[in-house]
Amino acid sequence: MSINTSRNNGLFHLPIPGFLHQADGQLQVQLRVEKTLNVQQVWVRIQPDNEELLVPMLATDTTDAWQNYEASFALDGVQAHTAYVFKVQGDQQMLWLAADGMHPRIPPLEVHFKQAHEAPPAWVSEQIFYQIFPDRFRNGDPTLNVADGAYHYLNKQPVKARTWAELPAQAHGPSEFFNGDLTGVVQALDYVQHTLGATAIYLNPVFRSDSNHKYDTVDYFAIDPHLGGDDALLALRHETQQRGMRMLLDGVLNHTSVKHPWFVQAQQGIQPYADYFMAADGDYVSWKGHKSLPVLDYSNPDVVEVFYQGERSVLRHWLRPPFAMDGWRLDVIHMLGEGAGAANNAAHVKAMRRVIKEENPEAYFLGEHFFEATSWLQGDQEDGAMNYYGFLQPVWMFLAGVDIARQPAHIDAADLAAWMREARAKIPFALAKTQFNLLDSHDTPRFFTLLQENQPRMQMAVRLLMVYLGVPCIYYGDEVGLTGGEDPACRAPFPWDHQTWHETLLRTYQTAINWRKELPELRDGAVVDLYAEGDMWVFARALEHRSVLVAVNRGITDARLTVPVQLLNNHPDQAWCSLDSGQIVKANEDGCLQLPVAAQTTELWVSSAPSSMGR
Amino acid sequence: MSINTSRNNGLFHLPIPGFLHQADGQLQVQLRVEKTLNVQQVWVRIQPDNEELLVPMLATDTTDAWQNYEASFALDGVQAHTAYVFKVQGDQQMLWLAADGMHPRIPPLEVHFKQAHEAPPAWVSEQIFYQIFPDRFRNGDPTLNVADGAYHYLNKQPVKARTWAELPAQAHGPSEFFNGDLTGVVQALDYVQHTLGATAIYLNPVFRSDSNHKYDTVDYFAIDPHLGGDDALLALRHETQQRGMRMLLDGVLNHTSVKHPWFVQAQQGIQPYADYFMAADGDYVSWKGHKSLPVLDYSNPDVVEVFYQGERSVLRHWLRPPFAMDGWRLDVIHMLGEGAGAANNAAHVKAMRRVIKEENPEAYFLGEHFFEATSWLQGDQEDGAMNYYGFLQPVWMFLAGVDIARQPAHIDAADLAAWMREARAKIPFALAKTQFNLLDSHDTPRFFTLLQENQPRMQMAVRLLMVYLGVPCIYYGDEVGLTGGEDPACRAPFPWDHQTWHETLLRTYQTAINWRKELPELRDGAVVDLYAEGDMWVFARALEHRSVLVAVNRGITDARLTVPVQLLNNHPDQAWCSLDSGQIVKANEDGCLQLPVAAQTTELWVSSAPSSMGR
Repeated sequence: MSINTSRNNGLFHLPIPGFLHQADGQLQVQLRVEKTLNVQQVWVRIQPDNEELLVPMLATDTTDAWQNYEASFALDGVQAHTAYVFKVQGDQQMLWLAADGMHPRIPPLEVHFKQAHEAPPAWVSEQIFYQIFPDRFRNGDPTLNVADGAYHYLNKQPVKARTWAELPAQAHGPSEFFNGDLTGVVQALDYVQHTLGATAIYLNPVFRSDSNHKYDTVDYFAIDPHLGGDDALLALRHETQQRGMRMLLDGVLNHTSVKHPWFVQAQQGIQPYADYFMAADGDYVSWKGHKSLPVLDYSNPDVVEVFYQGERSVLRHWLRPPFAMDGWRLDVIHMLGEGAGAANNAAHVKAMRRVIKEENPEAYFLGEHFFEATSWLQGDQEDGAMNYYGFLQPVWMFLAGVDIARQPAHIDAADLAAWMREARAKIPFALAKTQFNLLDSHDTPRFFTLLQENQPRMQMAVRLLMVYLGVPCIYYGDEVGLTGGEDPACRAPFPWDHQTWHETLLRTYQTAINWRKELPELRDGAVVDLYAEGDMWVFARALEHRSVLVAVNRGITDARLTVPVQLLNNHPDQAWCSLDSGQIVKANEDGCLQLPVAAQTTELWVSSAPSSMGR
Repeated sequence: MSINTSRNNGLFHLPIPGFLHQADGQLQVQLRVEKTLNVQQVWVRIQPDNEELLVPMLATDTTDAWQNYEASFALDGVQAHTAYVFKVQGDQQMLWLAADGMHPRIPPLEVHFKQAHEAPPAWVSEQIFYQIFPDRFRNGDPTLNVADGAYHYLNKQPVKARTWAELPAQAHGPSEFFNGDLTGVVQALDYVQHTLGATAIYLNPVFRSDSNHKYDTVDYFAIDPHLGGDDALLALRHETQQRGMRMLLDGVLNHTSVKHPWFVQAQQGIQPYADYFMAADGDYVSWKGHKSLPVLDYSNPDVVEVFYQGERSVLRHWLRPPFAMDGWRLDVIHMLGEGAGAANNAAHVKAMRRVIKEENPEAYFLGEHFFEATSWLQGDQEDGAMNYYGFLQPVWMFLAGVDIARQPAHIDAADLAAWMREARAKIPFALAKTQFNLLDSHDTPRFFTLLQENQPRMQMAVRLLMVYLGVPCIYYGDEVGLTGGEDPACRAPFPWDHQTWHETLLRTYQTAINWRKELPELRDGAVVDLYAEGDMWVFARALEHRSVLVAVNRGITDARLTVPVQLLNNHPDQAWCSLDSGQIVKANEDGCLQLPVAAQTTELWVSSAPSSMGR
């Protein structure tokens, strides 16, 4: 495929207002075409009844440089989205435009533009999330502490109380407690909201469980007493609501703890629990072979009822007042199903979506997927995925030279841009905006550690996190330079002693968060690749009439690139200003920019520089 | 994505015997790795429960140049195929191998290798199909003729009897008859089988219908009397069976004729027929707005019963003795469903597959799709598609400079190879072998006409049809140079006067058909792209220990290319012989071939030249 990433090639459509309008079951789309193409005819291609329909587009308004075309058509009556693609007959060549760029022939179906009929909640992409692992964030009420040796984890190890200054130890496994709690989270909200600038919290599991990570649930209807119980969650909810902050809970619906009463009774043959769990070869099935995690069987209607469908289901309970959570993050959701192989997974995830939206149409449905999650993100399942595939993995490989398995692996900027473009192009734009971008998590080494604390690379990554399409999430402590390798090292207690903070890094976060809050392009703009080769990637976050340029250069040499911007903005006198240097660059007459690209940084160039922009 | 099409890059796996073995619910796979890569570790990645599992591969046997690795794993318990991909840690770089080639990172899911658990029938890829439009092929029994004015087509035009020497006329539409019949087909079998060399027949619709094309069925359980009725079909079936020839029928299950008794009764409100058809806005729904073609409603269990599920269904009837057809080609199958938008299409097509295989596990299930049909070709729906997307469209654009809409559109060899590779890579190899390749059909202009009768280009195309992956189908008359543009011109009567035949073209067909019959690589070999740029495409059809090279050069200049073949065959002294010139080329020490590529031809180079090979 001859996709030219460094050239717009004369066709331009963004899946955003100004280029498309959905109303009354119709979609109106607009295409900008450079006049130099000498276009004979323009169509938008759709597939009602799975069959090609070429809808002719009509020429509408025009500028010196381009001609606009417009067409309307009915939304797809069966799919959760409407797929469309543009076909343009030039005088020399047929050209097609899809979500991943230009093609000389009909683009593969997976990259056709997709308009989701039911967009994820609008609030999601406005957020800066902060991920908190409760046992390690802040101890707000020592009376709640797990006492040393208070019980035996899984009837084996006595639990271990650790002091805040210590580091997690592999030897203790899930049975060591640093005794952070939800009261501590309440106490830290000023820090999270005002010092850092985050607007939303994603809490790792908080339901009753004997482990420190609580991914082995013992009671889905109660907050763990050592975290403060339901009252502490309510207090946190109240406080976040007062502050206008959002909150997500983390649900593990694929398996329970071996200590969950349902499983205990199941093992004794007590109904209805005896049929709650998957069985094979005379034993229960456990998650990835961990015997402590028996897998639930969603072919059992009782399981469906208790976890999502029923009037008092787990999913409904926490979305309802008084808890009124803003959404769910569901653990390993792709693995859930009926029997081995996650049979009928899609049907269950679709049904979960319906339940979640029934309770609150504004709730956010987030799934955990370490790998490509395209099929869960077509508009009828999740609103977003933990974006390991389309953000973390490519950024790790480009900046840290390791893949998701922590094995040495390198890509250049062309690979980086192509990968991220592929991930974006396969899902409706409305869902691309609500992908949950991250640099690391409780399941990975901290990125600063992967970078061997290379500060320029970390700055590049943090800025990318804040300026890229999707909603950014910061793993607690990353912003102050907290380090740590593989689990449990990546789950160290948050260092509340300011003296230990990496102040430069914190300012990097603060500044980039501020950019994201001030610049609508960074929240709502489409991504337009302008250059991708070697160490350098330049892209725009583009709205109809304004755009921000992002220039990434991991190399150690400053460069100057010719970047085509003629179709980006709707005014003849295009200029961008660097938020680092204050330098201003203007497009020349042929619509190209001579862009200085500084070494070892991610630099932002804005259409206009509001006075509020820090440096 | 940095996919290098001109270089194997040191990893080699073909989805064929020798590289994989499926038995007892397990798949064993083998990967060939060039020693120069200095590999540290090799994994095969699978996705049980939708979750990544990296299975380490063990080093097995070795040659001077490469090391083999092997691993076994359980087949996917839920999908109709098992997806896998290779991950290789070299000393410099991580490499992945997917069905579309090398990647620097985890390949997109759609191109992972896919092993279909239930392969299409083995006989299919052994065939050379011949498509017959019965009214235009041969008049074997003039007593069956539709007489001029015998009836009025759709109560409008009187039918028109034409003479064999005339050409179809747009003015007559579907109401003109040249009066070919099935008795004529029987008479022509010697020509089809022995003169040309085809082994199987695909008949356009033969069920009772008032039109010449019979895509508007009036009785699904009776052969049209003007074609000879059931007796003529039985005679043809008997004769083809005697000759060891295969036969497919063409079923239109999406809609009927407006004259079908079910629809006539439906219009009168008679049950159960009143609910057989789709209704909208107080009227019946018609196919693409053609009022003569009312669309069936598969949300009605009666429709499901009569067309496929019932004990006496249409699909079952013709697969059973005495008719015992070898399979079905189903018209516009992607459009069939429940209400507008083809709702639940996949469920119906899957159910049709089960019915077809119940009747005869060796039956071939072929669907008509003018565009990408990936989702119908994952192993649980069709065995093959009319391969417009993965063969006809790219070949048209490369050789004739038009796209499927007959609009001017050009691609170079890199685009051509990438497109065909994409189409192959997205489906299990067992299904790629049974894609129904074609250069044209009753629905398109004849390709020779599209080429303005350019003979070298036609030779290139015919050879490509015969040497490419999939099962070739020849549209009646193409082989003797029959011409014709848009329908109805493309449906001219077959010229039985040998004096009018294009003898050179016929020899081209005969020779290429003979190659396909003699060379197992052309039937069973995987496709390995070796070079694709500008006017030239070189690929191999590769088996474990032997391969054929195919060199396509649409340019007017001979060339010489360096082609890397070091991983292709399993012997050190690799040589290929041209079937055109008899020239022999040998790989040099670094495993590359200096391949002469003649202008304006598709040239075959065989590992060894059996004496039976013609020139």
